[in-house]
Amino acid sequence: MNLPSSVTIKEVGPRDGLQNEKHFIPTEDKIEWINMLSESGLKYIEITSFVNPKWIPQLADAIQVAKSIHRENDITYAALVPNERGLQGALEANVDEVAVFMSASESHNLKNINKSIVATFPVLKPVIQEAIVAGKTVRGYVSTVFGCPYEGEVSTDAVLSVSEQLFALGIQELSLGDTIGVANPRQVEKALTEILKHFPQEKIAMHFHDTRGTALANTLVALNLGITKFDSSLGGLGGCPYAPGASGNLATDDLHYMLENMGVETGINRDQLINAALFIEKKLGKLLPSHTMQIERSQNCH
Amino acid sequence: MNLPSSVTIKEVGPRDGLQNEKHFIPTEDKIEWINMLSESGLKYIEITSFVNPKWIPQLADAIQVAKSIHRENDITYAALVPNERGLQGALEANVDEVAVFMSASESHNLKNINKSIVATFPVLKPVIQEAIVAGKTVRGYVSTVFGCPYEGEVSTDAVLSVSEQLFALGIQELSLGDTIGVANPRQVEKALTEILKHFPQEKIAMHFHDTRGTALANTLVALNLGITKFDSSLGGLGGCPYAPGASGNLATDDLHYMLENMGVETGINRDQLINAALFIEKKLGKLLPSHTMQIERSQNCH
Repeated sequence: MNLPSSVTIKEVGPRDGLQNEKHFIPTEDKIEWINMLSESGLKYIEITSFVNPKWIPQLADAIQVAKSIHRENDITYAALVPNERGLQGALEANVDEVAVFMSASESHNLKNINKSIVATFPVLKPVIQEAIVAGKTVRGYVSTVFGCPYEGEVSTDAVLSVSEQLFALGIQELSLGDTIGVANPRQVEKALTEILKHFPQEKIAMHFHDTRGTALANTLVALNLGITKFDSSLGGLGGCPYAPGASGNLATDDLHYMLENMGVETGINRDQLINAALFIEKKLGKLLPSHTMQIERSQNCH
Repeated sequence: MNLPSSVTIKEVGPRDGLQNEKHFIPTEDKIEWINMLSESGLKYIEITSFVNPKWIPQLADAIQVAKSIHRENDITYAALVPNERGLQGALEANVDEVAVFMSASESHNLKNINKSIVATFPVLKPVIQEAIVAGKTVRGYVSTVFGCPYEGEVSTDAVLSVSEQLFALGIQELSLGDTIGVANPRQVEKALTEILKHFPQEKIAMHFHDTRGTALANTLVALNLGITKFDSSLGGLGGCPYAPGASGNLATDDLHYMLENMGVETGINRDQLINAALFIEKKLGKLLPSHTMQIERSQNCH
């Protein structure tokens, strides 16, 4: 196999994880948790979302969190931003990176953000451009890359079309999401091989979900194709919003296990990572689904 | 990637799964479950164990189960056999295949079966030879191939040494087990590449555990190296004996999902497989840990 010598794990737990948890984590706990993450070796943390709190009440304290956390110079603190109004909050909070988002599938885009794909770009354009003018980096999330809950199959052409337009608007990095965790390794190889003909690997991050247990196998394929950036959520936080205990986001701790043991450097201190996971699990009041956390809880399981 | 066109999934739930569950499944339920498995497209089912019921009370009804299940002509019904005494039961019960077992690591062998590795072969020899004389096929399980709970690392030489001696005694197939689920894909590639210089792929089955979530990624590597036989346990039955809810055996339903979606044929009917999983989950009175079963339980999770 052909593995990179090092990888950047992008921690999305404080946003993608918490936004899918019913339990509201008190602001001071979010802050303490993110500060722990900042000490674990992670170099990228998506700390919150500036989507209207009407939709994502769990992250209503976005500005306060962003302003109160300790900032390490060599860590990128990012936030999800849906529109210009959200961008104002993100700029006031002085995040380092702004993440915009949309879908490769028309139905999912409509359902998720109430617009057609073609009507989304004019909304994102000023967000991206103003963020860049303000000195921020910008990432673009594309959802349903490997399958859509409404349409089923999603063509690589659809993914390319949305991605190309986002790059044309100025994003610097693309995060390709298996939103419903249906992707299989063969499919990932096929799609990514095509996608990598259009964009260089260093501009691509993979955002796998582990709903069917295929996330690490898919990650292995992506690694072999040269991808060096992977989004994940500590402890598998966020799970599947409709099935208690079901997997959703790929778990940072499980991803880290595989990478570290394959000799792929992440710069992460595993003990501190796990301590951070134990902390948020306690605050959440429910068990985190990652394999790592299951083992942490056991007395004798090896 | 280089995938085989088809694979044989070897279902070990009724033995490796049930032996690790505290709850005793009534004999008639075991029989009904195995009969459901016989209708799912599976061609190999490990139905029970003839280890002394003193150690494995969950399978004390071994002979009764073996004698009462419906037998399909094109399905191999196998049983775990530790010694000659156990073999008598297996022959009386007319199983098709006998599975002997030992470890690649001395400490684990001692702890598990109370003998040194070198003292194990004379015990297995008559079992293997009498089974063959009786017209049975024989498989040999080797545990701790990728790591030992007591010794840590296990060398590929140790695995080869045990495997060669088992083949010399007459086994026809080797099942290589990641007993504590520590293996990573790079390690699997390295070990298997070496092992395949000594034995042909058709004589090797992989027995991955998903304790750290790496089983499917490891499976992908094995597939690419030409392995076409994989042991798994429906629903992830058996889990980790010491951590409620923790993963152990690779789940048949999750393995099937990945294979089927990659276009690798298994001959399995997914609906019937899942029905069989739902049946045993109900009888068990607790949730099965596989991703597939988590999704089955959800209303809206995709």
